[in-house]
Amino acid sequence: VRAQDLIVEQPTVGLSDPAVEAARVIGSQHRPAVVVVDDGGRPVTVLPASQVLRFLVPGYIQEDPSLVAVYDERAADELAGKLAGRTVGDLVPRGDRQKLPVVDPDATILECAAVMASLRSPVLVVREGDRTLGVVTASRLLEALFG
Amino acid sequence: VRAQDLIVEQPTVGLSDPAVEAARVIGSQHRPAVVVVDDGGRPVTVLPASQVLRFLVPGYIQEDPSLVAVYDERAADELAGKLAGRTVGDLVPRGDRQKLPVVDPDATILECAAVMASLRSPVLVVREGDRTLGVVTASRLLEALFG
Repeated sequence: VRAQDLIVEQPTVGLSDPAVEAARVIGSQHRPAVVVVDDGGRPVTVLPASQVLRFLVPGYIQEDPSLVAVYDERAADELAGKLAGRTVGDLVPRGDRQKLPVVDPDATILECAAVMASLRSPVLVVREGDRTLGVVTASRLLEALFG
Repeated sequence: VRAQDLIVEQPTVGLSDPAVEAARVIGSQHRPAVVVVDDGGRPVTVLPASQVLRFLVPGYIQEDPSLVAVYDERAADELAGKLAGRTVGDLVPRGDRQKLPVVDPDATILECAAVMASLRSPVLVVREGDRTLGVVTASRLLEALFG
């Protein structure tokens, strides 16, 4: 079994797309993450749903979620408004872009597991040259090993 | 909108169940994670698929995935064998058990987002007293905000 046998199709969003597009793709398709590509279609990073939430929630509330009590119901609207005028690239800190979880199509299960475990990523990009073929998810890998 | 409106059903595994059971539940249902409960059914922690992989892959390979080349195809079988005789509790380091991402059923969207963002968790346990009602996923939350 190789990475190419475990691929599931995965929508991508571009670095210069509106940030709200990434949130919509993740939300409407119930994905744990979305693959971010550059203008040439090359995968740049994996953007997890929790990272989008981190962008929305003020830092002092992330540090102490009990402070959320000072907010009221209307705050949810302000939350969503935070993506206005932002791009997908704004959601992905430049420092994080080095850590692309990626393998070639002929990677073994062990290789896939090693890269995922190492980067604690729920999703692994399968890349052939500059082209994104799709992703392997951690759950799909466990299915191949223990199913 | 409150946490109870966003709940999706989520299978649980017990701390003393065989470790392979957690891998099978995640794999067969294509979940990003599984909720771990104690003998009384109380949620203890969320076990992500990538954490199971971390248990399987030798530490020196996680530190340098290129070393995987020294392994051969048979290694995948040895990988799966690592769960033999282990319990779910063995997969969850005791130090991690403090960080249960949990909210009450009447938590607001902002509160859910804050806890998820803070713990970088893809899944949030909704608990009423000692009972696990289900989970809210980060993608479901983004759907509620941007759908």
